[in-house]
Amino acid sequence: MSLLVVGSVAFDAIETPFGKTDKILGGAGTFISLASSYFVPSPKVVSVVGHDFPSEHMELLRSHGIDLEGLQVKAEGKTFFWQGRYHNDMNSRDTVATELNVLADFDPVLPESYQDAEYLMLGNLSPVVQRQVIERLRTRPRLIAMDTMNFWMDTQLDELRRTLAMVDVLTINDSEARQLSGEYALVKAARKIQAMGPRFVIIKKGEHGALLFGDRKIFHAPALPLEDVFDPTGAGDTFAGGFIGYLAKTGDLSFENFKNAIILGSAMASFCVERFGTSRLQNLRQEEIYERVQQFIDLVRFDYESNA
Amino acid sequence: MSLLVVGSVAFDAIETPFGKTDKILGGAGTFISLASSYFVPSPKVVSVVGHDFPSEHMELLRSHGIDLEGLQVKAEGKTFFWQGRYHNDMNSRDTVATELNVLADFDPVLPESYQDAEYLMLGNLSPVVQRQVIERLRTRPRLIAMDTMNFWMDTQLDELRRTLAMVDVLTINDSEARQLSGEYALVKAARKIQAMGPRFVIIKKGEHGALLFGDRKIFHAPALPLEDVFDPTGAGDTFAGGFIGYLAKTGDLSFENFKNAIILGSAMASFCVERFGTSRLQNLRQEEIYERVQQFIDLVRFDYESNA
Repeated sequence: MSLLVVGSVAFDAIETPFGKTDKILGGAGTFISLASSYFVPSPKVVSVVGHDFPSEHMELLRSHGIDLEGLQVKAEGKTFFWQGRYHNDMNSRDTVATELNVLADFDPVLPESYQDAEYLMLGNLSPVVQRQVIERLRTRPRLIAMDTMNFWMDTQLDELRRTLAMVDVLTINDSEARQLSGEYALVKAARKIQAMGPRFVIIKKGEHGALLFGDRKIFHAPALPLEDVFDPTGAGDTFAGGFIGYLAKTGDLSFENFKNAIILGSAMASFCVERFGTSRLQNLRQEEIYERVQQFIDLVRFDYESNA
Repeated sequence: MSLLVVGSVAFDAIETPFGKTDKILGGAGTFISLASSYFVPSPKVVSVVGHDFPSEHMELLRSHGIDLEGLQVKAEGKTFFWQGRYHNDMNSRDTVATELNVLADFDPVLPESYQDAEYLMLGNLSPVVQRQVIERLRTRPRLIAMDTMNFWMDTQLDELRRTLAMVDVLTINDSEARQLSGEYALVKAARKIQAMGPRFVIIKKGEHGALLFGDRKIFHAPALPLEDVFDPTGAGDTFAGGFIGYLAKTGDLSFENFKNAIILGSAMASFCVERFGTSRLQNLRQEEIYERVQQFIDLVRFDYESNA
């Protein structure tokens, strides 16, 4: 069940209608590995930080069993930093600042102990770096999932398509699925993206849930209707972490079990947005997670008996 | 199980990226009654048309068992006409022309044979006319549902709120629910609207499905991910017709059965958008409807067993 997670470990500064933060722990690799740590014993992280990355953040990740052997610390550089401001509807945001810092020339190094990883989650990063990780693994993992974003479609589409051809699962949001495929209808968009490589495509629709396409089947997962979305930052990464963590835990790669993995990912994401940054993901109890999953079950279950 | 439907019987002229129509049969009352006719034997219509309304349209409605005793034909007036053009994404449209004609001074007359109606669906119309229908029924129906739109919020909010206080169910789309309640989060919006009167609030989210709020519970119904949406006109009314028709057929007003009614409404709406206007609703077979419902079941079902 060993899981390898690649993605940024970073600082975020966030402003929402509910408040604002200074530099707090963030980054796709952080959210993915924290969420997955509730399902697998020691997710292995490949990432890079600068000299300014505090030891408390390291300790927090280690306390969740996260393996940081593949986390490079660059004495001469600063940690990746993102600053954003959410609009009142919480569905759109402005990037106030992006400082790539040590991420600008990130060369992912895989420790020998990472070579046996069976599951690989490639968080949103340059598709070149994502591909380097795949190529540096001597044995192909059982399952490779990747996330990406419109920035890479705008700037490195050819590289993105090369990497996409090597993975099993793509997670992507609805507008990005439309951009990548050139199709508005998500059924058609997913089919075109599948033709680019991934057997499974998961289209994330935020407050409207997610769609799973694969094996000529479709599954629709709802999002919980929440009273308050406090901070959406990291929700997609947390989803990915819960999703891949659950698959790694169960080892069952059937379409049926992918459905469960998506529900678990959605449950983890629903916690993430309740507080700033990683706060809500730091001390979850297994009972809370299962109660949340039960809410998803109750939300969509109906017992129609056809009298045809 | 007698059902009374109030709503426009009209002409539509529609332009989509897939083609355009001349004046074809449309109107909320038309879509609602056609959809409900698959569940109840003779939906009773209250509406008004002009001298230009062709007998073929009357015959079509009658062939579905629809009771037209309450359909006034004004010799001196013309039928309500709406012309619209859909954008490429099919999620937004421009109104090219609206001619109220006989609808402008519509005075809803209820034939004596309509007085025993147990279920009442008030299609989108002036809230004054909607309330007149309620007040002209000597016995309150078992269930009163109403639809409305932003136009009435902009122009007759007080009247709308008076009518809203008298009904059991409101169907409304997401942006209108936000406008009516002043709340962005749909959970809060629904709660505020419930406080205005209706015990149940159904928020329609188009391609993202629908949410049912009532009895302190929430149900999320998906929409079928469709390859092509040919013409969305009438989808919301068709949803309402399937919904109220199923409730009238089964007579079960529990939250559990409301879920089934919403699935049936969603199934009917998914047919509606496959062709222009009412074409697809004219000759549905019961087996097609049940097959479509099965697709909804398959789309959301997952068999997660908690190991907590």
